[in-house]
Amino acid sequence: MKHLLVIGIGAGNPDYITMQAVKALNRVDVFFLMDKGKSKQALIDLRREICERYITDHTYRFVEAVSPERERGEGDYTASVDALNRARQQTFERLINEQLYDGQCGGFLVWGDPALYDSTLRILQAIQAAGRCEFDYEVIPGISSVQALAAQHKIPLNTIGRSVEITTGRRLAAGQSGEADSIVVMLDAEDSYQQVADRDTEIYWGAYLGTPDEILISGRLADVAEEIEHVRKAARAEHGWIMDIYLLRKP
Amino acid sequence: MKHLLVIGIGAGNPDYITMQAVKALNRVDVFFLMDKGKSKQALIDLRREICERYITDHTYRFVEAVSPERERGEGDYTASVDALNRARQQTFERLINEQLYDGQCGGFLVWGDPALYDSTLRILQAIQAAGRCEFDYEVIPGISSVQALAAQHKIPLNTIGRSVEITTGRRLAAGQSGEADSIVVMLDAEDSYQQVADRDTEIYWGAYLGTPDEILISGRLADVAEEIEHVRKAARAEHGWIMDIYLLRKP
Ligand SMILES: C[S@@+](CC[C@H](N)C(=O)[O-])C[C@H]1O[C@@H](n2cnc3c(N)ncnc32)[C@H](O)[C@@H]1O
Ligand SMILES: C[S@@+](CC[C@H](N)C(=O)[O-])C[C@H]1O[C@@H](n2cnc3c(N)ncnc32)[C@H](O)[C@@H]1O
Repeated sequence: MKHLLVIGIGAGNPDYITMQAVKALNRVDVFFLMDKGKSKQALIDLRREICERYITDHTYRFVEAVSPERERGEGDYTASVDALNRARQQTFERLINEQLYDGQCGGFLVWGDPALYDSTLRILQAIQAAGRCEFDYEVIPGISSVQALAAQHKIPLNTIGRSVEITTGRRLAAGQSGEADSIVVMLDAEDSYQQVADRDTEIYWGAYLGTPDEILISGRLADVAEEIEHVRKAARAEHGWIMDIYLLRKP
Repeated sequence: MKHLLVIGIGAGNPDYITMQAVKALNRVDVFFLMDKGKSKQALIDLRREICERYITDHTYRFVEAVSPERERGEGDYTASVDALNRARQQTFERLINEQLYDGQCGGFLVWGDPALYDSTLRILQAIQAAGRCEFDYEVIPGISSVQALAAQHKIPLNTIGRSVEITTGRRLAAGQSGEADSIVVMLDAEDSYQQVADRDTEIYWGAYLGTPDEILISGRLADVAEEIEHVRKAARAEHGWIMDIYLLRKP
Protein backbone atom coordinates (compact mmCIF):
# COMPACT_ATOMS: atom_id res chain seq x y z
CA MET A 1 0.00 0.00 0.00
CA LYS A 2 1.12 3.54 -0.80
CA HIS A 3 0.27 6.41 1.49
CA LEU A 4 -0.34 10.02 0.51
CA LEU A 5 -0.41 13.10 2.69
CA VAL A 6 -2.19 16.22 1.49
CA ILE A 7 -0.62 18.89 3.64
CA GLY A 8 -1.95 22.42 3.97
CA ILE A 9 1.08 24.69 4.40
CA GLY A 10 -0.75 27.95 5.07
CA ALA A 11 -1.24 30.87 2.73
CA GLY A 12 2.07 32.72 2.65
CA ASN A 13 3.78 32.99 6.03
CA PRO A 14 6.05 29.98 6.69
CA ASP A 15 5.06 30.31 10.38
CA TYR A 16 1.45 29.45 9.46
CA ILE A 17 2.56 25.81 9.37
CA THR A 18 0.96 23.67 12.09
CA MET A 19 2.63 21.10 14.34
CA GLN A 20 0.50 18.49 12.64
CA ALA A 21 1.89 19.55 9.27
CA VAL A 22 5.47 19.47 10.60
CA LYS A 23 4.95 15.91 11.80
CA ALA A 24 3.44 14.99 8.44
CA LEU A 25 6.32 16.61 6.50
CA ASN A 26 8.72 14.41 8.44
CA ARG A 27 6.97 11.26 7.17
CA VAL A 28 7.16 12.08 3.46
CA ASP A 29 9.59 10.25 1.15
CA VAL A 30 8.64 12.01 -2.07
CA PHE A 31 7.15 15.48 -2.46
CA PHE A 32 5.19 16.13 -5.62
CA LEU A 33 5.43 19.75 -6.74
CA MET A 34 2.89 20.78 -9.33
CA ASP A 35 2.41 24.50 -9.41
CA LYS A 36 1.75 26.23 -12.62
CA GLY A 37 1.68 29.64 -14.16
CA LYS A 38 3.49 32.85 -13.37
CA SER A 39 3.39 32.55 -9.61
CA LYS A 40 5.03 29.15 -9.95
CA GLN A 41 8.54 29.93 -8.85
CA ALA A 42 7.59 31.92 -5.75
CA LEU A 43 5.19 29.23 -4.61
CA ILE A 44 7.65 26.40 -5.22
CA ASP A 45 10.33 28.33 -3.35
CA LEU A 46 8.10 28.59 -0.29
CA ARG A 47 7.53 24.86 -0.38
CA ARG A 48 11.25 24.10 -0.54
CA GLU A 49 11.92 26.59 2.24
CA ILE A 50 9.30 24.93 4.43
CA CYS A 51 10.81 21.48 3.85
CA GLU A 52 14.32 22.72 4.58
CA ARG A 53 13.23 24.48 7.71
CA TYR A 54 11.02 21.82 9.27
CA ILE A 55 12.20 18.41 8.11
CA THR A 56 14.79 17.33 10.62
CA ASP A 57 15.14 13.58 10.59
CA HIS A 58 14.11 12.13 7.27
CA THR A 59 15.50 11.98 3.73
CA TYR A 60 13.16 13.07 1.03
CA ARG A 61 13.21 14.06 -2.61
CA PHE A 62 11.19 16.38 -4.82
CA VAL A 63 9.52 15.38 -8.05
CA GLU A 64 8.41 18.30 -10.18
CA ALA A 65 5.64 17.71 -12.68
CA VAL A 66 4.49 20.01 -15.42
CA SER A 67 0.89 20.66 -14.50
CA PRO A 68 -1.50 21.35 -17.37
CA GLU A 69 -2.98 24.84 -17.28
CA ARG A 70 -6.55 25.92 -17.78
CA GLU A 71 -7.40 27.51 -21.11
CA ARG A 72 -8.32 31.11 -20.37
CA GLY A 73 -11.14 32.85 -22.12
CA GLU A 74 -14.88 32.52 -22.25
CA GLY A 75 -16.57 29.12 -22.29
CA ASP A 76 -17.89 27.02 -19.45
CA TYR A 77 -15.76 27.45 -16.34
CA THR A 78 -16.77 24.22 -14.61
CA ALA A 79 -16.25 22.20 -17.80
CA SER A 80 -12.80 23.66 -18.36
CA VAL A 81 -11.78 22.99 -14.73
CA ASP A 82 -13.16 19.48 -15.12
CA ALA A 83 -11.11 18.86 -18.26
CA LEU A 84 -8.06 20.25 -16.53
CA ASN A 85 -8.58 17.99 -13.55
CA ARG A 86 -8.81 14.94 -15.81
CA ALA A 87 -5.43 15.86 -17.32
CA ARG A 88 -4.01 16.41 -13.84
CA GLN A 89 -5.46 13.11 -12.75
CA GLN A 90 -3.34 11.32 -15.36
CA THR A 91 -0.25 13.17 -14.17
CA PHE A 92 -0.99 12.26 -10.53
CA GLU A 93 -1.60 8.60 -11.43
CA ARG A 94 1.68 8.42 -13.29
CA LEU A 95 3.57 10.01 -10.40
CA ILE A 96 2.05 7.70 -7.81
CA ASN A 97 2.68 4.62 -9.97
CA GLU A 98 6.20 5.49 -11.11
CA GLN A 99 7.71 7.51 -8.31
CA LEU A 100 6.45 5.83 -5.16
CA TYR A 101 7.16 2.29 -3.94
CA ASP A 102 4.75 0.28 -1.83
CA GLY A 103 5.06 1.31 1.80
CA GLN A 104 6.37 4.76 0.85
CA CYS A 105 4.74 8.05 1.63
CA GLY A 106 4.07 10.74 -0.97
CA GLY A 107 3.31 14.34 -0.07
CA PHE A 108 1.36 17.13 -1.75
CA LEU A 109 2.04 20.54 -0.26
CA VAL A 110 -1.12 22.56 -0.76
CA TRP A 111 -1.15 26.35 -0.51
CA GLY A 112 -3.40 27.51 2.35
CA ASP A 113 -6.00 24.91 3.26
CA PRO A 114 -6.62 21.94 0.93
CA ALA A 115 -10.39 22.35 1.46
CA LEU A 116 -10.69 25.74 -0.26
CA TYR A 117 -10.54 26.19 -4.04
CA ASP A 118 -7.92 23.55 -4.56
CA SER A 119 -8.35 20.45 -6.71
CA THR A 120 -5.91 18.03 -5.05
CA LEU A 121 -8.59 16.25 -2.97
CA ARG A 122 -11.02 16.09 -5.88
CA ILE A 123 -8.34 14.54 -8.09
CA LEU A 124 -7.30 11.94 -5.51
CA GLN A 125 -10.96 11.01 -5.01
CA ALA A 126 -11.36 10.55 -8.77
CA ILE A 127 -8.23 8.37 -8.96
CA GLN A 128 -9.45 6.19 -6.12
CA ALA A 129 -12.88 5.90 -7.72
CA ALA A 130 -11.28 4.86 -11.03
CA GLY A 131 -9.43 2.13 -9.11
CA ARG A 132 -6.30 2.08 -11.25
CA CYS A 133 -3.95 3.04 -8.44
CA GLU A 134 -3.94 1.76 -4.86
CA PHE A 135 -3.27 4.17 -2.01
CA ASP A 136 -4.82 5.74 1.02
CA TYR A 137 -4.47 9.36 2.08
CA GLU A 138 -4.79 11.79 4.94
CA VAL A 139 -5.57 15.51 4.91
CA ILE A 140 -3.81 18.07 7.11
CA PRO A 141 -5.64 21.41 7.31
CA GLY A 142 -3.72 24.67 6.89
CA ILE A 143 -4.29 28.37 7.54
CA SER A 144 -6.21 29.62 4.49
CA SER A 145 -5.93 33.04 2.89
CA VAL A 146 -9.43 33.77 4.26
CA GLN A 147 -8.05 33.48 7.78
CA ALA A 148 -4.86 35.36 6.97
CA LEU A 149 -7.03 38.21 5.66
CA ALA A 150 -9.13 38.40 8.84
CA ALA A 151 -6.11 38.13 11.14
CA GLN A 152 -4.09 40.82 9.37
CA HIS A 153 -7.05 43.21 9.40
CA LYS A 154 -7.81 42.11 13.01
CA ILE A 155 -11.48 41.56 12.20
CA PRO A 156 -14.01 38.75 12.64
CA LEU A 157 -15.33 37.24 9.41
CA ASN A 158 -18.95 37.19 10.59
CA THR A 159 -21.13 39.78 12.29
CA ILE A 160 -22.99 38.56 15.39
CA GLY A 161 -24.99 35.40 14.61
CA ARG A 162 -24.91 36.03 10.84
CA SER A 163 -23.53 34.06 7.89
CA VAL A 164 -20.34 34.38 5.89
CA GLU A 165 -20.23 33.52 2.21
CA ILE A 166 -16.95 32.56 0.57
CA THR A 167 -17.13 33.03 -3.17
CA THR A 168 -15.18 33.84 -6.33
CA GLY A 169 -14.68 37.09 -8.22
CA ARG A 170 -16.42 35.47 -11.16
CA ARG A 171 -19.57 34.82 -9.16
CA LEU A 172 -19.54 38.25 -7.51
CA ALA A 173 -19.28 39.92 -10.94
CA ALA A 174 -22.11 37.74 -12.26
CA GLY A 175 -24.37 38.84 -9.37
CA GLN A 176 -24.44 35.25 -8.09
CA SER A 177 -23.43 36.00 -4.53
CA GLY A 178 -26.03 35.50 -1.84
CA GLU A 179 -27.57 37.74 0.78
CA ALA A 180 -24.94 37.18 3.47
CA ASP A 181 -23.83 40.51 4.91
CA SER A 182 -20.21 39.26 4.97
CA ILE A 183 -18.79 38.00 1.68
CA VAL A 184 -15.22 36.84 1.15
CA VAL A 185 -14.09 36.99 -2.47
CA MET A 186 -11.22 34.87 -3.79
CA LEU A 187 -9.86 34.20 -7.27
CA ASP A 188 -10.80 37.64 -8.56
CA ALA A 189 -8.85 38.50 -11.71
CA GLU A 190 -11.09 41.41 -12.68
CA ASP A 191 -11.54 43.90 -9.79
CA SER A 192 -15.09 42.66 -9.32
CA TYR A 193 -15.55 44.78 -6.15
CA GLN A 194 -16.03 47.64 -8.62
CA GLN A 195 -19.37 46.08 -9.58
CA VAL A 196 -20.85 46.15 -6.07
CA ALA A 197 -23.78 48.57 -6.25
CA ASP A 198 -23.83 49.83 -2.65
CA ARG A 199 -20.68 51.94 -2.34
CA ASP A 200 -21.16 52.18 1.44
CA THR A 201 -20.09 48.54 1.61
CA GLU A 202 -16.86 48.16 3.60
CA ILE A 203 -14.01 46.32 1.91
CA TYR A 204 -11.05 44.70 3.67
CA TRP A 205 -8.54 43.90 0.96
CA GLY A 206 -5.23 42.04 1.23
CA ALA A 207 -2.58 40.98 -1.27
CA TYR A 208 0.44 38.65 -0.83
CA LEU A 209 -0.83 38.06 2.71
CA GLY A 210 1.67 36.68 5.19
CA THR A 211 4.61 37.46 2.89
CA PRO A 212 7.07 40.38 3.05
CA ASP A 213 5.13 41.98 0.16
CA GLU A 214 1.81 42.04 2.02
CA ILE A 215 -0.49 44.99 1.27
CA LEU A 216 -3.63 45.83 3.28
CA ILE A 217 -6.29 48.41 2.41
CA SER A 218 -9.69 48.87 4.03
CA GLY A 219 -12.55 51.34 4.04
CA ARG A 220 -15.84 52.15 2.30
CA LEU A 221 -15.84 51.20 -1.38
CA ALA A 222 -16.68 54.81 -2.18
CA ASP A 223 -13.44 55.86 -0.48
CA VAL A 224 -10.94 53.12 -1.33
CA ALA A 225 -12.03 51.16 -4.42
CA GLU A 226 -10.04 53.38 -6.80
CA GLU A 227 -6.98 53.14 -4.59
CA ILE A 228 -7.23 49.34 -4.47
CA GLU A 229 -7.57 49.08 -8.23
CA HIS A 230 -4.55 51.31 -8.68
CA VAL A 231 -2.37 49.57 -6.06
CA ARG A 232 -3.41 46.18 -7.41
CA LYS A 233 -2.43 47.02 -10.96
CA ALA A 234 0.93 48.43 -9.87
CA ALA A 235 1.69 45.42 -7.65
CA ARG A 236 0.82 42.98 -10.38
CA ALA A 237 3.05 44.82 -12.83
CA GLU A 238 5.90 44.85 -10.33
CA HIS A 239 5.72 41.16 -9.32
CA GLY A 240 4.43 39.72 -12.59
CA TRP A 241 1.54 38.11 -10.69
CA ILE A 242 -0.76 38.85 -7.78
CA MET A 243 -2.74 36.92 -5.23
CA ASP A 244 -5.36 38.93 -3.40
CA ILE A 245 -8.56 38.39 -1.46
CA TYR A 246 -11.12 40.62 0.22
CA LEU A 247 -14.04 40.71 2.60
CA LEU A 248 -17.09 42.81 1.70
CA ARG A 249 -19.26 43.86 4.62
CA LYS A 250 -22.66 45.27 3.71
CA PRO A 251 -23.71 48.37 5.61
CA MET B 1 1.78 50.55 26.35
CA LYS B 2 0.24 47.14 26.97
CA HIS B 3 0.24 44.55 24.27
CA LEU B 4 -2.38 41.86 23.70
CA LEU B 5 -2.15 38.73 21.59
CA VAL B 6 -5.34 37.04 20.42
CA ILE B 7 -4.10 33.55 19.61
CA GLY B 8 -6.10 30.96 17.68
CA ILE B 9 -5.17 27.58 19.15
CA GLY B 10 -7.06 25.37 16.69
CA ALA B 11 -10.30 23.51 17.26
CA GLY B 12 -9.42 20.47 19.33
CA ASN B 13 -6.17 18.79 18.33
CA PRO B 14 -3.20 20.31 20.20
CA ASP B 15 -1.16 19.68 17.00
CA TYR B 16 -3.34 22.19 15.15
CA ILE B 17 -1.24 24.90 16.77
CA THR B 18 0.83 26.91 14.28
CA MET B 19 4.47 27.96 14.58
CA GLN B 20 3.25 31.54 14.66
CA ALA B 21 1.06 30.70 17.65
CA VAL B 22 3.93 28.93 19.42
CA LYS B 23 6.09 32.03 19.00
CA ALA B 24 3.24 34.20 20.27
CA LEU B 25 2.64 31.93 23.29
CA ASN B 26 6.26 32.40 24.26
CA ARG B 27 5.80 36.18 24.46
CA VAL B 28 2.83 36.17 26.82
CA ASP B 29 3.20 37.17 30.49
CA VAL B 30 -0.42 36.72 31.53
CA PHE B 31 -2.99 34.42 29.95
CA PHE B 32 -6.63 35.36 30.44
CA LEU B 33 -8.89 32.31 30.58
CA MET B 34 -12.57 33.04 30.19
CA ASP B 35 -14.50 30.00 29.17
CA LYS B 36 -17.96 29.43 30.42
CA GLY B 37 -20.60 26.78 30.62
CA LYS B 38 -20.45 23.02 30.79
CA SER B 39 -17.64 22.54 28.32
CA LYS B 40 -15.54 24.89 30.43
CA GLN B 41 -13.22 22.45 32.12
CA ALA B 42 -12.32 20.49 28.97
CA LEU B 43 -11.57 23.67 27.06
CA ILE B 44 -9.51 25.19 29.86
CA ASP B 45 -7.59 21.94 30.19
CA LEU B 46 -6.64 22.04 26.50
CA ARG B 47 -5.37 25.59 26.92
CA ARG B 48 -3.21 24.67 29.92
CA GLU B 49 -1.89 21.64 28.06
CA ILE B 50 -0.94 23.77 25.07
CA CYS B 51 0.92 26.24 27.29
CA GLU B 52 2.77 23.48 29.11
CA ARG B 53 3.72 21.76 25.92
CA TYR B 54 4.84 24.72 23.85
CA ILE B 55 6.10 27.44 26.19
CA THR B 56 9.76 26.72 26.70
CA ASP B 57 11.55 29.86 27.76
CA HIS B 58 9.22 32.27 29.44
CA THR B 59 7.44 32.54 32.78
CA TYR B 60 3.75 33.17 32.60
CA ARG B 61 0.69 33.04 34.76
CA PHE B 62 -3.00 32.36 34.25
CA VAL B 63 -5.80 34.65 35.34
CA GLU B 64 -9.20 33.01 35.30
CA ALA B 65 -12.23 35.26 35.02
CA VAL B 66 -15.83 34.31 35.51
CA SER B 67 -17.33 35.12 32.15
CA PRO B 68 -21.00 36.13 32.11
CA GLU B 69 -23.21 33.68 30.23
CA ARG B 70 -25.93 34.42 27.72
CA GLU B 71 -29.49 34.07 28.94
CA ARG B 72 -30.98 31.16 27.04
CA GLY B 73 -34.50 31.16 25.70
CA GLU B 74 -36.44 33.16 23.17
CA GLY B 75 -35.88 36.87 22.66
CA ASP B 76 -33.56 38.71 20.31
CA TYR B 77 -30.35 36.75 19.76
CA THR B 78 -28.23 39.68 18.57
CA ALA B 79 -29.40 41.89 21.43
CA SER B 80 -28.63 39.23 24.01
CA VAL B 81 -25.15 38.61 22.54
CA ASP B 82 -24.65 42.37 22.51
CA ALA B 83 -25.61 42.67 26.18
CA LEU B 84 -23.34 39.77 26.99
CA ASN B 85 -20.44 41.36 25.15
CA ARG B 86 -20.92 44.59 27.10
CA ALA B 87 -20.64 42.64 30.33
CA ARG B 88 -17.57 40.82 29.00
CA GLN B 89 -16.10 44.12 27.93
CA GLN B 90 -16.14 45.31 31.55
CA THR B 91 -14.44 42.09 32.64
CA PHE B 92 -11.76 42.45 29.93
CA GLU B 93 -11.17 46.11 30.83
CA ARG B 94 -10.73 45.22 34.47
CA LEU B 95 -8.30 42.42 33.64
CA ILE B 96 -6.21 44.57 31.34
CA ASN B 97 -6.12 47.44 33.85
CA GLU B 98 -5.50 45.38 36.97
CA GLN B 99 -3.51 42.36 35.84
CA LEU B 100 -1.14 43.75 33.23
CA TYR B 101 1.67 46.26 33.69
CA ASP B 102 2.83 48.64 31.00
CA GLY B 103 5.16 46.83 28.61
CA GLN B 104 3.68 43.45 29.49
CA CYS B 105 1.97 41.13 27.09
CA GLY B 106 -1.46 39.60 27.73
CA GLY B 107 -2.76 36.59 25.84
CA PHE B 108 -6.23 35.35 24.92
CA LEU B 109 -6.27 31.75 23.73
CA VAL B 110 -9.19 31.48 21.34
CA TRP B 111 -10.66 28.12 20.36
CA GLY B 112 -10.25 27.48 16.62
CA ASP B 113 -9.82 30.70 14.66
CA PRO B 114 -10.55 34.08 16.35
CA ALA B 115 -12.34 35.24 13.17
CA LEU B 116 -15.22 32.75 13.35
CA TYR B 117 -18.10 33.09 15.82
CA ASP B 118 -15.95 34.37 18.64
CA SER B 119 -16.40 37.71 20.36
CA THR B 120 -12.85 38.43 21.56
CA LEU B 121 -11.97 40.71 18.63
CA ARG B 122 -15.30 42.52 18.77
CA ILE B 123 -14.84 43.17 22.49
CA LEU B 124 -11.27 44.46 22.10
CA GLN B 125 -12.44 46.77 19.32
CA ALA B 126 -15.19 48.10 21.56
CA ILE B 127 -12.75 48.70 24.42
CA GLN B 128 -10.36 50.58 22.14
CA ALA B 129 -13.22 52.65 20.74
CA ALA B 130 -14.33 53.54 24.28
CA GLY B 131 -10.76 54.71 24.97
CA ARG B 132 -10.68 53.84 28.66
CA CYS B 133 -7.79 51.40 28.33
CA GLU B 134 -4.61 51.76 26.30
CA PHE B 135 -3.22 48.78 24.42
CA ASP B 136 -2.49 47.44 20.99
CA TYR B 137 -3.12 43.91 19.79
CA GLU B 138 -2.24 41.31 17.19
CA VAL B 139 -4.31 38.41 15.88
CA ILE B 140 -2.88 34.94 15.19
CA PRO B 141 -5.14 32.77 13.02
CA GLY B 142 -5.85 29.17 14.03
CA ILE B 143 -7.30 26.04 12.42
CA SER B 144 -11.08 26.41 12.73
CA SER B 145 -13.59 23.63 13.27
CA VAL B 146 -14.74 24.24 9.66
CA GLN B 147 -11.32 23.15 8.44
CA ALA B 148 -11.05 20.27 10.91
CA LEU B 149 -14.39 19.00 9.58
CA ALA B 150 -13.26 19.08 5.95
CA ALA B 151 -9.86 17.53 6.73
CA GLN B 152 -11.26 14.67 8.78
CA HIS B 153 -13.84 13.87 6.10
CA LYS B 154 -11.11 14.42 3.43
CA ILE B 155 -13.40 16.65 1.39
CA PRO B 156 -13.19 20.12 -0.16
CA LEU B 157 -15.60 22.69 1.28
CA ASN B 158 -16.61 24.06 -2.12
CA THR B 159 -17.63 22.39 -5.35
CA ILE B 160 -15.82 23.62 -8.47
CA GLY B 161 -16.06 27.41 -8.78
CA ARG B 162 -19.06 27.62 -6.40
CA SER B 163 -19.61 29.37 -3.06
CA VAL B 164 -19.55 28.12 0.50
CA GLU B 165 -21.81 29.59 3.16
CA ILE B 166 -20.86 29.34 6.81
CA THR B 167 -23.88 29.82 9.02
CA THR B 168 -25.54 28.89 12.32
CA GLY B 169 -28.07 26.21 13.24
CA ARG B 170 -30.42 29.01 14.22
CA ARG B 171 -30.34 30.54 10.74
CA LEU B 172 -30.63 27.18 8.98
CA ALA B 173 -33.71 26.33 11.05
CA ALA B 174 -35.23 29.74 10.29
CA GLY B 175 -34.78 29.17 6.54
CA GLN B 176 -32.30 32.05 6.41
CA SER B 177 -29.51 30.21 4.67
CA GLY B 178 -28.70 31.22 1.12
CA GLU B 179 -28.53 29.39 -2.17
CA ALA B 180 -24.95 28.16 -1.87
CA ASP B 181 -24.75 24.45 -2.69
CA SER B 182 -22.28 23.97 0.18
CA ILE B 183 -23.38 25.14 3.62
CA VAL B 184 -21.39 24.71 6.82
CA VAL B 185 -23.52 24.85 9.96
CA MET B 186 -22.05 25.74 13.35
CA LEU B 187 -23.60 26.47 16.75
CA ASP B 188 -26.53 24.12 16.18
CA ALA B 189 -28.17 23.15 19.47
CA GLU B 190 -31.33 21.80 17.84
CA ASP B 191 -30.53 19.21 15.13
CA SER B 192 -31.52 21.75 12.48
CA TYR B 193 -30.37 19.44 9.64
CA GLN B 194 -33.68 17.65 10.30
CA GLN B 195 -35.45 20.68 8.81
CA VAL B 196 -33.71 20.53 5.43
CA ALA B 197 -36.43 19.72 2.90
CA ASP B 198 -34.37 17.88 0.27
CA ARG B 199 -33.40 14.59 1.94
CA ASP B 200 -30.99 13.79 -0.92
CA THR B 201 -28.73 16.49 0.51
CA GLU B 202 -25.41 15.00 1.66
CA ILE B 203 -24.34 15.72 5.22
CA TYR B 204 -20.78 15.49 6.58
CA TRP B 205 -21.10 15.66 10.35
CA GLY B 206 -18.37 15.79 12.98
CA ALA B 207 -18.34 16.08 16.77
CA TYR B 208 -15.42 16.72 19.16
CA LEU B 209 -13.22 17.06 16.06
CA GLY B 210 -9.51 16.65 16.57
CA THR B 211 -9.99 15.18 20.06
CA PRO B 212 -9.85 11.51 21.13
CA ASP B 213 -13.68 11.56 21.26
CA GLU B 214 -14.09 12.56 17.61
CA ILE B 215 -17.13 11.14 15.79
CA LEU B 216 -17.68 11.35 12.03
CA ILE B 217 -20.82 10.42 10.10
CA SER B 218 -21.63 11.17 6.46
CA GLY B 219 -24.21 10.24 3.87
CA ARG B 220 -27.55 11.33 2.42
CA LEU B 221 -29.83 12.94 5.01
CA ALA B 222 -32.43 10.29 4.16
CA ASP B 223 -29.94 7.62 5.21
CA VAL B 224 -28.06 9.11 8.16
CA ALA B 225 -30.05 11.95 9.77
CA GLU B 226 -31.71 9.63 12.30
CA GLU B 227 -28.37 8.04 13.16
CA ILE B 228 -26.75 11.45 13.68
CA GLU B 229 -29.57 12.62 15.93
CA HIS B 230 -29.28 9.44 17.96
CA VAL B 231 -25.46 9.46 18.23
CA ARG B 232 -25.52 13.17 19.03
CA LYS B 233 -27.98 12.75 21.89
CA ALA B 234 -26.04 9.81 23.34
CA ALA B 235 -22.69 11.64 23.09
CA ARG B 236 -24.09 14.74 24.74
CA ALA B 237 -25.52 12.65 27.57
CA GLU B 238 -22.21 10.86 28.03
CA HIS B 239 -19.96 13.96 28.00
CA GLY B 240 -22.41 16.45 29.50
CA TRP B 241 -21.83 18.75 26.46
CA ILE B 242 -21.22 18.51 22.75
CA MET B 243 -19.55 20.55 20.05
CA ASP B 244 -20.46 19.55 16.53
CA ILE B 245 -20.49 21.00 13.05
CA TYR B 246 -21.58 19.82 9.62
CA LEU B 247 -21.41 20.51 5.92
CA LEU B 248 -24.57 20.20 3.84
CA ARG B 249 -24.05 19.61 0.14
CA LYS B 250 -27.11 20.05 -2.05
CA PRO B 251 -27.63 17.36 -4.68
C1 LIG C 1 -6.63 28.54 -6.04
S1 LIG C 1 -7.11 29.49 -4.64
C2 LIG C 1 -6.32 28.62 -3.33
C3 LIG C 1 -6.76 29.01 -1.96
C4 LIG C 1 -6.00 28.30 -0.87
N1 LIG C 1 -6.25 26.87 -0.86
C5 LIG C 1 -6.31 28.90 0.51
O1 LIG C 1 -6.71 28.15 1.40
O2 LIG C 1 -6.12 30.11 0.69
C6 LIG C 1 -6.10 30.94 -4.87
C7 LIG C 1 -6.74 32.21 -4.32
O3 LIG C 1 -6.50 32.26 -2.92
C8 LIG C 1 -6.29 33.59 -2.53
N2 LIG C 1 -4.96 33.66 -1.88
C9 LIG C 1 -4.17 32.61 -1.61
N3 LIG C 1 -3.08 32.99 -0.93
C10 LIG C 1 -3.19 34.33 -0.76
C11 LIG C 1 -2.37 35.31 -0.12
N4 LIG C 1 -1.24 34.98 0.51
N5 LIG C 1 -2.80 36.60 -0.15
C12 LIG C 1 -3.95 36.94 -0.74
N6 LIG C 1 -4.75 36.05 -1.36
C13 LIG C 1 -4.38 34.76 -1.37
C14 LIG C 1 -6.43 34.47 -3.74
O4 LIG C 1 -7.77 34.92 -3.78
C15 LIG C 1 -6.17 33.50 -4.86
O5 LIG C 1 -6.84 33.88 -6.03
C1 LIG D 1 -18.52 29.74 19.48
S1 LIG D 1 -18.18 28.81 18.03
C2 LIG D 1 -16.43 28.97 17.96
C3 LIG D 1 -15.82 28.54 16.65
C4 LIG D 1 -14.31 28.58 16.65
N1 LIG D 1 -13.82 29.96 16.76
C5 LIG D 1 -13.74 27.93 15.40
O1 LIG D 1 -12.97 28.57 14.68
O2 LIG D 1 -14.04 26.75 15.18
C6 LIG D 1 -18.46 27.17 18.61
C7 LIG D 1 -18.94 26.22 17.52
O3 LIG D 1 -17.82 25.78 16.78
C8 LIG D 1 -17.99 24.43 16.39
N2 LIG D 1 -16.86 23.66 16.93
C9 LIG D 1 -15.78 24.17 17.56
N3 LIG D 1 -14.90 23.22 17.84
C10 LIG D 1 -15.40 22.06 17.37
C11 LIG D 1 -14.93 20.72 17.33
N4 LIG D 1 -13.73 20.39 17.84
N5 LIG D 1 -15.73 19.78 16.78
C12 LIG D 1 -16.92 20.12 16.25
N6 LIG D 1 -17.40 21.36 16.25
C13 LIG D 1 -16.65 22.33 16.79
C14 LIG D 1 -19.34 23.98 16.89
O4 LIG D 1 -20.27 24.17 15.85
C15 LIG D 1 -19.59 24.95 18.02
O5 LIG D 1 -20.96 25.15 18.21
